[in-house]
Amino acid sequence: MISAQSRVLITGADGFVGWHALTHLHSQGWRDIHVTTYSSSDRLVQACGVDKVHQVDLTDKNAVQELLQAVQPEAIIHFAAWSSVGGSFENASKIMHLNTELQLGMLEGIKNAVPTARLLCIGSAHAYGHVPAELDAWHVTEDYPFFPDNPYSVSKLSQEMLSRAYATAFELDIIFVRPFNQIGPGQRGEFAVASFADQIAHIERGEQDYLSVGNLDAVRDFTDVRDAAVAYRLLLEKGQSQATYNLGSGRGVRMQDVLDSLLQLADQEIRVEVDAQRLRPSDLPVFVADPRRLRALGWTPSYSLEQTLRDILKEARLQKTEKTE
Amino acid sequence: MISAQSRVLITGADGFVGWHALTHLHSQGWRDIHVTTYSSSDRLVQACGVDKVHQVDLTDKNAVQELLQAVQPEAIIHFAAWSSVGGSFENASKIMHLNTELQLGMLEGIKNAVPTARLLCIGSAHAYGHVPAELDAWHVTEDYPFFPDNPYSVSKLSQEMLSRAYATAFELDIIFVRPFNQIGPGQRGEFAVASFADQIAHIERGEQDYLSVGNLDAVRDFTDVRDAAVAYRLLLEKGQSQATYNLGSGRGVRMQDVLDSLLQLADQEIRVEVDAQRLRPSDLPVFVADPRRLRALGWTPSYSLEQTLRDILKEARLQKTEKTE
Repeated sequence: MISAQSRVLITGADGFVGWHALTHLHSQGWRDIHVTTYSSSDRLVQACGVDKVHQVDLTDKNAVQELLQAVQPEAIIHFAAWSSVGGSFENASKIMHLNTELQLGMLEGIKNAVPTARLLCIGSAHAYGHVPAELDAWHVTEDYPFFPDNPYSVSKLSQEMLSRAYATAFELDIIFVRPFNQIGPGQRGEFAVASFADQIAHIERGEQDYLSVGNLDAVRDFTDVRDAAVAYRLLLEKGQSQATYNLGSGRGVRMQDVLDSLLQLADQEIRVEVDAQRLRPSDLPVFVADPRRLRALGWTPSYSLEQTLRDILKEARLQKTEKTE
Repeated sequence: MISAQSRVLITGADGFVGWHALTHLHSQGWRDIHVTTYSSSDRLVQACGVDKVHQVDLTDKNAVQELLQAVQPEAIIHFAAWSSVGGSFENASKIMHLNTELQLGMLEGIKNAVPTARLLCIGSAHAYGHVPAELDAWHVTEDYPFFPDNPYSVSKLSQEMLSRAYATAFELDIIFVRPFNQIGPGQRGEFAVASFADQIAHIERGEQDYLSVGNLDAVRDFTDVRDAAVAYRLLLEKGQSQATYNLGSGRGVRMQDVLDSLLQLADQEIRVEVDAQRLRPSDLPVFVADPRRLRALGWTPSYSLEQTLRDILKEARLQKTEKTE
């Protein structure tokens, strides 16, 4: 049984979701948390202590195995991955190769060094892709068929499928998670909601004239990353081995409504323009999780969409970085 | 419309299935057949003429694009791939990388050089893998879920999924084929039926003492590779763009019965021993195609299993090669 007393390893802990998962586990009294990072990270050292931050190239299978051998984690959350749809056809080879290697390195390492450790395999709801017309895209269950519509989504499906093959062949304790859209403070501006907030902050500072948007008709399922962090903990503690869990709110929101809510929080009138470049032709009109399996573990999202958007905009206003494209 | 007048490109034409497809197209009056080969191949030069044999590394995207640009095929059968389950966990990275690159190279090349060409994407029934207990493993339809249980099978699923993503995004004319077991003269000895025949030939020549076998209880779907070749032609000519087709006989045969038929064809009594090394623990008891969609195109297998086995053994007896492991 995994609990706050367990030793856990988080990869990608310096990323958007990983950081919130780490923060949440700390807040719940978890003290034996090891993390990996590709380059040095001051905030990870501050959060975990220098002896628990491991600078390692996770595509180096020997290095991963040595790390697992040395740390002996009882649980692993493997967030490290290429994690964006944008540019995925142009970078198809790179994304497939990187995500495959990141997953195989971890699977081989677990098999050889810590075969009883529990692994959260972080897949993606993008693996469902095009929900066929005869199915209900308002309640996508874990049994839906896969129609990933870009190489990034194929790479996430491959990660899950490889993990499934290893779990079956070597009786590994792997739990499969398929997150829908996760939003919140700290997300990079290439994701739609983060981009809206970043642009509003730029406009408020006079650095940009208008807000550029893509498809506003799409209905999506947004989970606050801080609620998602709770879900990852519950899955470690209570998830059923080799089972699959959607991670989504189950609540569909039109992108137009997300935008309108953000615009109401802005301190000025903002002009909105649709940019054809931001329109992905393959976008599904509706795509919402059926999260009953995860909810049965006791998970309930606690952040309202308004609170989430407020926090995202607050953080965007604090960023004094270059204009985000 | 693709017909015997069309220019076709076959990759992997020097392999087991590719060679039979090439031979069949020739027999049907196709004359404009280009082939690729990694190293020189005398029989390809004899079959196609030296100007239609292209020595090219299909993982080199630029080379593939230049080839397609130069040849301008109207149809492509892309057989080239790592094509065996054996050792697939040990070689997981290599297999995933090779099969991904082989597929992406072709997809990018088609998109850029011959966007209206028809592509047969050769997937694998291994993508279905573990048919869930509640489903009927005697009639596996194209809508069955995917549970590939080894890295090779994941790589074949990834090839199909990448092809699907490209087909949707760039409106490519791709047909998805999922072959079940294909057997016949010319198959390498690492496949079960070919191995039985090779071993019988060795025993008949006094080079081996007994026949070593794996799981004989499994029920499998065998198609003669010469019947499969007909299916590939029909799919080129009549397949529906972006549709998926099982390629299987629909007839389930116990491995024990295959072995018994071969033993009856042997010219001496042969001792059989079960080798635990050849038992794959994940083997499904039954795995048989529902081939109705392919049959609706007019495909009917014409080789009896007995004829196929007779031809396989005949060819194995002609091989004076080293003992096959």
